[in-house]
Amino acid sequence: MIELYHCIDARSFRALWALEEMGLPYRLHVLPFPPRVHQPGYLEQNPLGTIPLMIDGEVRMTESAAIPQYLATRYGPTPLAVGVEEPDYGLWLDWLHRSEATLTFPQTIVLRYTRLEPEERRLQQAADDYAQWFLSRLRHLTRALADGREWLCAGRFTMADLCVGYALLFARTLNLDHKFSPEVSAYWDRLSARTAFIAAQAAQTSNPEELA
Amino acid sequence: MIELYHCIDARSFRALWALEEMGLPYRLHVLPFPPRVHQPGYLEQNPLGTIPLMIDGEVRMTESAAIPQYLATRYGPTPLAVGVEEPDYGLWLDWLHRSEATLTFPQTIVLRYTRLEPEERRLQQAADDYAQWFLSRLRHLTRALADGREWLCAGRFTMADLCVGYALLFARTLNLDHKFSPEVSAYWDRLSARTAFIAAQAAQTSNPEELA
Repeated sequence: MIELYHCIDARSFRALWALEEMGLPYRLHVLPFPPRVHQPGYLEQNPLGTIPLMIDGEVRMTESAAIPQYLATRYGPTPLAVGVEEPDYGLWLDWLHRSEATLTFPQTIVLRYTRLEPEERRLQQAADDYAQWFLSRLRHLTRALADGREWLCAGRFTMADLCVGYALLFARTLNLDHKFSPEVSAYWDRLSARTAFIAAQAAQTSNPEELA
Repeated sequence: MIELYHCIDARSFRALWALEEMGLPYRLHVLPFPPRVHQPGYLEQNPLGTIPLMIDGEVRMTESAAIPQYLATRYGPTPLAVGVEEPDYGLWLDWLHRSEATLTFPQTIVLRYTRLEPEERRLQQAADDYAQWFLSRLRHLTRALADGREWLCAGRFTMADLCVGYALLFARTLNLDHKFSPEVSAYWDRLSARTAFIAAQAAQTSNPEELA
């Protein structure tokens, strides 16, 4: 059975949500955040100390936007993946990468310098710079949705939407969502109404395997 | 013919190197960095103002670690891709994503706050924090290479090595390479000795299509 190490509403939520979308059985381990501080024994599982860690037999993965692509292609066929023969294949790969490299990393800088660092190490300028950077990149999402498009690729919900959806969830925890365009707000409403999203939200708080 | 918009030794080098590895014909446009400042007309091509922009017929991609995966799977079969049926498929996806989200983005923060921002907006603490963050994540690369492994996945050079290789090239321009482990230094020597790497380096400086 697939095992997932996760912190509530952290990047590993992508993997949890993807498992629910795929309907795959899994065992969930919920760790306190950040695990390298509060759960030092976890370093034996993942020397990086980061989440997610997904273990599927001999396969061990730690990149949150790679895991949904892995699950959809390894355990497909499923409409959640866009096949290499489809016109939107390149667009799909682009959004999968953009969700993390472009839309999530800048938010981690905001989180670090407004909440995680002790007061004397906080950097309001860096937090403001990267909040602004995130919002400027988010305009690309608004443009992509501007023609009434419901999902990003191939006319259907795919793992690219799921990965971008996590970036929007993160933005909400940083109170950046009041800057969402109407297109992005409506997209978020569609994403968060999905049965698998709701099931993943429930799973992370009702989990008997909690290690914290 | 595939078109690539590129700045010398910037992230778009991944796409250029990948085109050379694949032996695909392409037209290269070299822009001054950063293009949104020095080449405002480029915003008509790419409203984000970022590089790379790769145009392949109807396909337009801007994520540097997605383009090598696209080229290898769309124009394969090639040993540069790891197939879904291979044991290292998950590892391959993980390294493709890690190359940018984990190993490149932190370096862009160092670049910004030590060189790109005007003096009064530079933040040595943020630059030091993310140089340290990058180097701590680079230990994962050292571990991956520690058992004498030559390449990261599937016992052969793949697009994952190419994408990680760019992160090492970037680290050299930031003078972070004196912190490379012996394993990482030797890996860099193997990467930069590849015929396609050398051809891509030559192409970006001898290009008749230069728009600068």
